Amino acid sequence: MNNYSKISLSENGRTELHDALSLTGAEISVNSLPAGASVPFVHVHRQNEEIYAVLEGKGKAEIDGESIEIKAGVWVRIEPKAQRRFFADHDRPRLLLGGRRIDKKTQREL
Amino acid sequence: MNNYSKISLSENGRTELHDALSLTGAEISVNSLPAGASVPFVHVHRQNEEIYAVLEGKGKAEIDGESIEIKAGVWVRIEPKAQRRFFADHDRPRLLLGGRRIDKKTQREL
Repeated sequence: MNNYSKISLSENGRTELHDALSLTGAEISVNSLPAGASVPFVHVHRQNEEIYAVLEGKGKAEIDGESIEIKAGVWVRIEPKAQRRFFADHDRPRLLLGGRRIDKKTQREL
Repeated sequence: MNNYSKISLSENGRTELHDALSLTGAEISVNSLPAGASVPFVHVHRQNEEIYAVLEGKGKAEIDGESIEIKAGVWVRIEPKAQRRFFADHDRPRLLLGGRRIDKKTQREL
């Protein structure tokens, strides 16, 4: 068995890396957000901070009602209790979302 | 106090995000690797897996002596015990390295 696993991402849609790479503690997904769309809907997290990296394009994030500009090279950490929403400009941001994996039954970190 | 923190990365050098974004469990750095260089030197980890994402450019990774091609869009998870080394082609890969944060004294995960 190799001491590594590898995946090459496509340009479109959403890829979840936890199962694809057999990750242990991390939960990472890469998302392409169509122009004019917002994703995900306004939501909060119970206990895990989330870290967002913008890989391509630009847009804005709304965090607790505050709007901030985002573009490639921007990283944002968001507290669990913060309400968040993301919007893509016409350049179509490509968003990387990462955070701790949470057990869905116990809501404890794995 | 805001429920988020934000940083805009520069194009060059190495940026460590743990302190910059007040992360809790994650250790993330973004690195630009000059053409022809290899970084870091061959090394292993005691217990934390590492996850590498190639953001720009192309090159190769040597993992336990096996050479694999890497380019933008490739993600690789590497076991703690694996020896690893990275090389940049002339396109200068921009490497994102992430993993669990480890206490340097106790070698336990924080």
